[in-house]
Amino acid sequence: MITGVTNPRMKQVAAWQQKARERRRDKVFLAEGVKMFLEAPPDWIMEVYLTEALFEKQKANQAFKDRLKAVGYELVSEEVFSRISDTQTPQGILCVLRQPEYELSDLLKGENPLLIVLENLQDPGNLGTILRTGEGAGISGLIMSTGTVDIFNPKVIRSTMGSVYRVPFLYTSDLQEILHKLQNAGVRTFAAHLKGKQYFQETGFRGPCAFLIGNEGNGLTDEISQCAGEYIKIPMEGKVESLNASVAASLLMYEAYRQRHLS
Amino acid sequence: MITGVTNPRMKQVAAWQQKARERRRDKVFLAEGVKMFLEAPPDWIMEVYLTEALFEKQKANQAFKDRLKAVGYELVSEEVFSRISDTQTPQGILCVLRQPEYELSDLLKGENPLLIVLENLQDPGNLGTILRTGEGAGISGLIMSTGTVDIFNPKVIRSTMGSVYRVPFLYTSDLQEILHKLQNAGVRTFAAHLKGKQYFQETGFRGPCAFLIGNEGNGLTDEISQCAGEYIKIPMEGKVESLNASVAASLLMYEAYRQRHLS
Repeated sequence: MITGVTNPRMKQVAAWQQKARERRRDKVFLAEGVKMFLEAPPDWIMEVYLTEALFEKQKANQAFKDRLKAVGYELVSEEVFSRISDTQTPQGILCVLRQPEYELSDLLKGENPLLIVLENLQDPGNLGTILRTGEGAGISGLIMSTGTVDIFNPKVIRSTMGSVYRVPFLYTSDLQEILHKLQNAGVRTFAAHLKGKQYFQETGFRGPCAFLIGNEGNGLTDEISQCAGEYIKIPMEGKVESLNASVAASLLMYEAYRQRHLS
Repeated sequence: MITGVTNPRMKQVAAWQQKARERRRDKVFLAEGVKMFLEAPPDWIMEVYLTEALFEKQKANQAFKDRLKAVGYELVSEEVFSRISDTQTPQGILCVLRQPEYELSDLLKGENPLLIVLENLQDPGNLGTILRTGEGAGISGLIMSTGTVDIFNPKVIRSTMGSVYRVPFLYTSDLQEILHKLQNAGVRTFAAHLKGKQYFQETGFRGPCAFLIGNEGNGLTDEISQCAGEYIKIPMEGKVESLNASVAASLLMYEAYRQRHLS
């Protein structure tokens, strides 16, 4: 059992927790909690740390014990765990995972691609929620500008509720180039925009399509919205000028779902 | 100009910022920023505090100056403002507002009521987002159990983006009673629930209706879901078991919007 908070390994885990740069250098990320441990693809798991209290609590959980045995683990003291955890009331299990790497072709798999493209989204909760709702709505992938918040940020990972394991994603420093590639691959690119004339509920999303969502405060840059194939509009009553980015993305993805599966 | 951080008035404002109990006792709440000041109903505004820097910055904004003159204001130093502000980078204007009080009849006004009913929602961002999206989707009101987060919490106020001024709401310690009242008034009550058989996109929301949304971790209690008139289901692909509460509410409200206005 690791009991020393100055243990070099624990210091490294704490650094991965806090710094995107450290995670990027070592191509790892962290996930906490029993659900995140059980749902992780086994070949992504590099290290597992847990407290004795959690080990005892899960004694009757055979799936948990089998997996622990298969991937290996190390016990750490409560004090050490509270240092390496990102949460205020830690569950007592933390995994170090390798970062997955996807190609654009991975995001275009399947018969009818449905993509979300994010430009400079900043809020970790929004990104996590978009990934979670995206899996629910059946998207095939997520594309992000390099100015978007780090998807391996612990708050993002937590709010994906496991979807980060299952939805392919990639970062690009050249969003314009990717949009052109999508268009060349027959994917229609839609931007929710004030200039949009057609309501999203009256626009056809049955074929391959991608939705562009911009930064929380500023929306899409002119540069990127000019690359969008079509503008659409989310109707708004009252004095509302815009919706939260994750709400806007969710409405578009589920409208595509409705058209593809239910009508 | 108020420059002393120990000024009793400023201490009271800081207490309103931090404590729901203090706000409740005095029936006030706080809102920060130029937009929140300009959109506030004039007769709700009790006090306005701003910094000289903001006053200078808004010199050319006639609407801003007219309103300041009409409602009155007091200048405070930057140091004082940072003590009474809830944000890390304050805009430099804060209003003390009286809490509005609504009756159920206010929420049922209009030809075709559309209501959101929240049971024990905990996250301020979720509540603010629901109110903001709700105004956009044209809801007539919001009902909350007393176990729901305080709508006058500064984080909620901020994330409503002004919708708190325009959407009527009320708290109730007896959600069951309110649900029966709604049903007696001809409002259909829908709970998004695992037991639901009908997809929400295939359920009719053209008449008066209310959507029940539960706590983030636990959903609706059995007690309350048993009072719901009908169960509906949000389809989910992959391994997703539930959606974020504000996303679920947004999908339901905008589906009602679509059916009422666009099809």
